[in-house]
Amino acid sequence: MPRLDLTLDEVRGLVGGGEIVGDPGFLCAGLAPLESAGPRDLSFVKDRRYLEAAAGSRAGALLVPEPIDGFAGHQLVVTAPLAAFARILARIAEEARRQPAGIHPAAEVHPAAKIGEGVTVGPGAVVREEAEVGDGSVLYANVYLGQRSRIGRRSVLWPNVVILEDVVAGDRLVVHAGAVIGAEGYGYAQLDGRHVKVPQVGSIVIGDDVEIGALATIDRATIASTTIGRGTKVGDLAHVAHNCRVGEDVLILPTVALSGSVTVGDRAILAGRAGTSDNVTIGEGAVLGGTSVAFRDVPPGAVMWGNPAREKTLEIRIQAALARLPEMQRELRRLRRRLEES
Amino acid sequence: MPRLDLTLDEVRGLVGGGEIVGDPGFLCAGLAPLESAGPRDLSFVKDRRYLEAAAGSRAGALLVPEPIDGFAGHQLVVTAPLAAFARILARIAEEARRQPAGIHPAAEVHPAAKIGEGVTVGPGAVVREEAEVGDGSVLYANVYLGQRSRIGRRSVLWPNVVILEDVVAGDRLVVHAGAVIGAEGYGYAQLDGRHVKVPQVGSIVIGDDVEIGALATIDRATIASTTIGRGTKVGDLAHVAHNCRVGEDVLILPTVALSGSVTVGDRAILAGRAGTSDNVTIGEGAVLGGTSVAFRDVPPGAVMWGNPAREKTLEIRIQAALARLPEMQRELRRLRRRLEES
Amino acid sequence: MPRLDLTLDEVRGLVGGGEIVGDPGFLCAGLAPLESAGPRDLSFVKDRRYLEAAAGSRAGALLVPEPIDGFAGHQLVVTAPLAAFARILARIAEEARRQPAGIHPAAEVHPAAKIGEGVTVGPGAVVREEAEVGDGSVLYANVYLGQRSRIGRRSVLWPNVVILEDVVAGDRLVVHAGAVIGAEGYGYAQLDGRHVKVPQVGSIVIGDDVEIGALATIDRATIASTTIGRGTKVGDLAHVAHNCRVGEDVLILPTVALSGSVTVGDRAILAGRAGTSDNVTIGEGAVLGGTSVAFRDVPPGAVMWGNPAREKTLEIRIQAALARLPEMQRELRRLRRRLEES
Repeated sequence: MPRLDLTLDEVRGLVGGGEIVGDPGFLCAGLAPLESAGPRDLSFVKDRRYLEAAAGSRAGALLVPEPIDGFAGHQLVVTAPLAAFARILARIAEEARRQPAGIHPAAEVHPAAKIGEGVTVGPGAVVREEAEVGDGSVLYANVYLGQRSRIGRRSVLWPNVVILEDVVAGDRLVVHAGAVIGAEGYGYAQLDGRHVKVPQVGSIVIGDDVEIGALATIDRATIASTTIGRGTKVGDLAHVAHNCRVGEDVLILPTVALSGSVTVGDRAILAGRAGTSDNVTIGEGAVLGGTSVAFRDVPPGAVMWGNPAREKTLEIRIQAALARLPEMQRELRRLRRRLEES
Repeated sequence: MPRLDLTLDEVRGLVGGGEIVGDPGFLCAGLAPLESAGPRDLSFVKDRRYLEAAAGSRAGALLVPEPIDGFAGHQLVVTAPLAAFARILARIAEEARRQPAGIHPAAEVHPAAKIGEGVTVGPGAVVREEAEVGDGSVLYANVYLGQRSRIGRRSVLWPNVVILEDVVAGDRLVVHAGAVIGAEGYGYAQLDGRHVKVPQVGSIVIGDDVEIGALATIDRATIASTTIGRGTKVGDLAHVAHNCRVGEDVLILPTVALSGSVTVGDRAILAGRAGTSDNVTIGEGAVLGGTSVAFRDVPPGAVMWGNPAREKTLEIRIQAALARLPEMQRELRRLRRRLEES
Repeated sequence: MPRLDLTLDEVRGLVGGGEIVGDPGFLCAGLAPLESAGPRDLSFVKDRRYLEAAAGSRAGALLVPEPIDGFAGHQLVVTAPLAAFARILARIAEEARRQPAGIHPAAEVHPAAKIGEGVTVGPGAVVREEAEVGDGSVLYANVYLGQRSRIGRRSVLWPNVVILEDVVAGDRLVVHAGAVIGAEGYGYAQLDGRHVKVPQVGSIVIGDDVEIGALATIDRATIASTTIGRGTKVGDLAHVAHNCRVGEDVLILPTVALSGSVTVGDRAILAGRAGTSDNVTIGEGAVLGGTSVAFRDVPPGAVMWGNPAREKTLEIRIQAALARLPEMQRELRRLRRRLEES
């Protein structure tokens, strides 16, 4: 479990306020999940539903959305405990991932690249001609940033990330290890029974505060741009094909695959391994359930489930009926026989 | 949008002929998709179905399969507009991706490797003993080419591609960033309740004109060879397991997974996230729909859909019936009651 | 096919015993699969079911579980032919993959890292501060081993593997090319309609004899540990999300995806592209079929199939009934009409 070594009062300073119930001088030695936290640990209660369960916790201190009466330890009352806890985790992450500043001598940064203030570039990383790296960004070892590509300020490219040419991203971009941004989409023309490559020479445009998971692939457009809107989060091993237009604050969970030219509206959620066929539109705020596949457009706000995806309540009824399908079949046979006999 | 800056007559030269309707001296400043092309852009009409829609396009010039009567701009009439357009894209790609020739001083090329004429090897790339790289090939940064592996002429290995030992590929191989060719397949023997590794020491043989997507994995055979036939195209994040035998001109779309020892006939198409179980054969020219999974052999020319995959027309009828399944169930209950009452 | 060049008697020594039926001096020139083995090749008969088929093999010599009467070549009788054959393959693999010992001058090993005896570190590999590499381990080119991470003895990290900070693994760990261990899980808190990152600062603990496939992702825990038990084998492109607890001797086949906080019991098997939703438990020894998805807990020893996963025998009956569903629907319509007419 991670070390913290801050007093509850210092924790209050770190998370930006809150009311302490108990001793502000209590030393939070470490962090732990609610169920395993001990008397020297700080933990948190995600929301009101867990308050009762938390009363019996052995944690030394808790971040809570409202004071818990029966709880024996110390409490810091905040409006959004998970978000506050996230700030503490960010502090721990910062410590654990501290990088040596500057450009490592074994990095290859082109003289015509533009490197901001306070940038870290690890060994083996390559920054090509006319690429730009914003202030305070970190490129880990063996990262590749292609010609004319730009990442904004305070971005992090984890080891072995590949961003190819002509990709433009905003500030605070995080790309996890091994992800590939800007490979050519799957485009072929059929000519005399052979597949002729259609080179993909478009670009990718990524907004601020985007996070891309490990080993995810975002393909460049054929001639226009593949776009990923501000605040959108893409999970590990996910695939966004060429010419997709993904809106803002979209959640694309791990192993999701978007086919070519798909449009995803703002705040839509694609759960684990969801997918789509080419050219469909997932409406604003729509939800596509885990492993569900949209072969047609999904209306804004709709909640769809199954493969092919159907309105969730219908899909649930279908699945329930399916479990009785063999029985239905026997029943149908019995009815026919009775009808024939009568 | 990409710059072009060629006259229509120069475009005709580039695509290898065609008939100009309009001004051969018209300057095509850029390329754009049909729907967004402006008066200085060149665009294209994929095939005859789109001719009518194209008549109203604002594009300055169009590649067309036959002259459009009402179109206000200039036209270049060619037999296969998409393939012709692909040649123009190839010229743009060539410009955008121009590499410095030669072996970068930070590359590790073994003295016993054989490097052809006009080869580019980027920084951090490793070429192991007895490996061979054909004339005019490009190895981007941090590529790994294993012992005794060979790639043919005019091939491209994008950054961080890993080709392990004893992989033999033809000419014009393209492997996109981060793909892994030659990892060991998933092979274990069960002994006293433990899983004992069965080392995979076979090879991979890849024909000419093969393209492998970003972060795809092609596993080596146990003792013989995994094979990928000439002209076959494998998409991003696709998986070809050990001992597979994939034919020529096969389309394996992104996120498809072939299990061990699968045979795929020439010109078969496996759409996005299609899959198979071990040892099945997908017949020549067969089509397996998106997310469909073949647990049994697919006959040549068959079009299969669903999980488990069924003949497509049957699967469509099943899916239509499924949407009415809860209603069928109620209907069945009503019928039984009426029969019991009568 | 791989060369062997050992006499049958030497093969007996290599596999640790067995009884020779035929000439101990017979030279096994190469290895080949049973169906393609020639008179100079050694092959093997996996188990008793294949004995009859093997009698007609053209192989020069066979590893067999019991002597085959009609077989013309030489035989080595062993209790577990596949496991014995695996030892021969291991010898061939050792030859084919021999690495130069020592730390390559183009590797970046931090002075505060702890490197065991007889370790190989390839060019471009990075070993960060306080990382530890056990005796006899091999890190191929461009591998990244993060701060404070430890791998045990005789481990192999193939090219471009990324192990981030605070990952602790046992002996004989094998990680195939490009896999990423220790990326942050997909964790966000919702605050004012935006997704706020919950940094993942936990660790990963991996037992002895674990193997991780190419381009697989194992995510670190939020604050505790993601765990992979001794002897567990994870396939290519598989995904193990944050906070998962995977038992011992588990088989996670290629392209399987475990969602967050999933528990998998010892000796469970998740077949190709199987999946789960968050927080489910797959019981000890349970089997989840290919492409099957567990939305609920799977009891120990259960065999589940389908999406959503159901008890296998039920799922088989459902799938059989489904093929007749359009016919059932017509039948139901006929019955209703007859009932209405009567």
